Amino acid sequence: MLSFDEHNLTDEVVNRFAGCPDDRLKQVIQALVRHAHAFVKEVELTEQEWFAAIQFLTRTGQMCDDKRQEFILLSDVLGISMLVDAINHRMPDGATESTVLGPFYLGEHRVTPFGGDIAGDEPGERLFVEGTVSSPGGAPIAGATVDIWHSDDDGFYDAQKGLEEPSLRARFITDEKGRFGFRSIVPSSYPIPHDGPVGELLEATKRHPMRPAHIHFKIAAPGHETLVTHLFIPGDPWLESDAVFGVKESLIATLTTRQGGSYPDGSAAPDTWTHLAHDFGLKPTA
Amino acid sequence: MLSFDEHNLTDEVVNRFAGCPDDRLKQVIQALVRHAHAFVKEVELTEQEWFAAIQFLTRTGQMCDDKRQEFILLSDVLGISMLVDAINHRMPDGATESTVLGPFYLGEHRVTPFGGDIAGDEPGERLFVEGTVSSPGGAPIAGATVDIWHSDDDGFYDAQKGLEEPSLRARFITDEKGRFGFRSIVPSSYPIPHDGPVGELLEATKRHPMRPAHIHFKIAAPGHETLVTHLFIPGDPWLESDAVFGVKESLIATLTTRQGGSYPDGSAAPDTWTHLAHDFGLKPTA
Ligand SMILES: [Fe+2]
Ligand SMILES: [Fe+2]
Repeated sequence: MLSFDEHNLTDEVVNRFAGCPDDRLKQVIQALVRHAHAFVKEVELTEQEWFAAIQFLTRTGQMCDDKRQEFILLSDVLGISMLVDAINHRMPDGATESTVLGPFYLGEHRVTPFGGDIAGDEPGERLFVEGTVSSPGGAPIAGATVDIWHSDDDGFYDAQKGLEEPSLRARFITDEKGRFGFRSIVPSSYPIPHDGPVGELLEATKRHPMRPAHIHFKIAAPGHETLVTHLFIPGDPWLESDAVFGVKESLIATLTTRQGGSYPDGSAAPDTWTHLAHDFGLKPTA
Repeated sequence: MLSFDEHNLTDEVVNRFAGCPDDRLKQVIQALVRHAHAFVKEVELTEQEWFAAIQFLTRTGQMCDDKRQEFILLSDVLGISMLVDAINHRMPDGATESTVLGPFYLGEHRVTPFGGDIAGDEPGERLFVEGTVSSPGGAPIAGATVDIWHSDDDGFYDAQKGLEEPSLRARFITDEKGRFGFRSIVPSSYPIPHDGPVGELLEATKRHPMRPAHIHFKIAAPGHETLVTHLFIPGDPWLESDAVFGVKESLIATLTTRQGGSYPDGSAAPDTWTHLAHDFGLKPTA
């Protein structure tokens, strides 16, 4: 009874957690043991591979600081982040699908009025985004907070450029018709940070680090689940191979090229600009 | 085809690794994805639990330095280290079973003659260990290197005490009859380092960090697989619940208490001492 081998060791480890006083923790850790052991047994992991894995995980932890979370990147490229997202956000009809938060959300954004320009002098194709926020039944939600952030024309976020002021990042509050809108530029696709262990993994497996161009949204309103999602720019060459598996068809926006005239807020538009209109549905809390 | 949900995402992630040029890496990473996703789905991991796991792994990596390997400890307490050991060391009859290397091996040890005292002034019950090293057929192996190391009477290794000279640690070379022997003290049980994330996990799940008292052996000889194992001290209260699952019945030594007389090397023995004799079999390389 004291000799554990590859056939009875897993049960012994599971049993060793039988006294865990927190039922949920017990369930999670016992399942983790069973699945981790099943993986080791299936591939018959060698001692050299095991040690390489120990070293990889150690370097991944040591790559993390207050600006870089390499374990989230690892979870992202293994599809685990999107799986957790899918399990926790099963959406009813009429509710917008969710996707990953990503590493560039910086908490609360400055409130900006309808039509505000968040691009300033940033070069790029001029863009007007407008949308509504409603309940799945169609009732508009007034006073919802709409946080948006996206990359610049070169694929960089303000946080990566060391800017003193927020750029391509703001909060809007929906009006009584559930509307919000702003001026910006069309974002660019970009690579996830790939100068660390996760980049080595992608390189060794011949996967690219690119994400298709997108605008992040985080929309919150009382009585509803907070929605974390993106809108993707159609036609992007990386749409079918997003490094983090974040794309959903319903999240690919419709963009219309317009010539001159005025923006939806009535202000003068440039000779050529892009119009993006999208309506969002929030899932009511149970 | 672009919309991945909890039902088809796993296949998509597995397929994304299809172009990996290294067949073994492809097999391992694809299996890892399938088992990791199966775990997340089985327990329906919440976003809060996912983030707690990210933070736990990050702290585990950041606990590591040149003297502390917290990911190996994590692997140990989840039984993964012993599972990898079991899979990679399926022993034929007559070969000694293996167990974990542990964190206190420090590489090559100073060569010490037969009967040498490796305890010096260390307090504790005097011990004489002797044994033979042979092939499973019974042929003695001359010139095998036998590295041994163990804890002191309080459960600490020399590396933990910051000693300048090695203590309770040495290398012996078997003679033409395959014999080695040395004087030491009986080691004590000890806790694995539990002031980090792994200690938190043990505490949260109400598991103790103790290992039953043991002597580590690393035995190498040409034409044979290097044997990494322990001998355990019988009667130890932690034998049935070793925190790292390292105990095997065949590795529990037989200890005999003796009164005076002389040690097996002919030198004078104290009034009371303990005799440990154990023969080791090495697995021939294929
Ligand atoms: Fe992004
Ligand atoms: Fe030990």
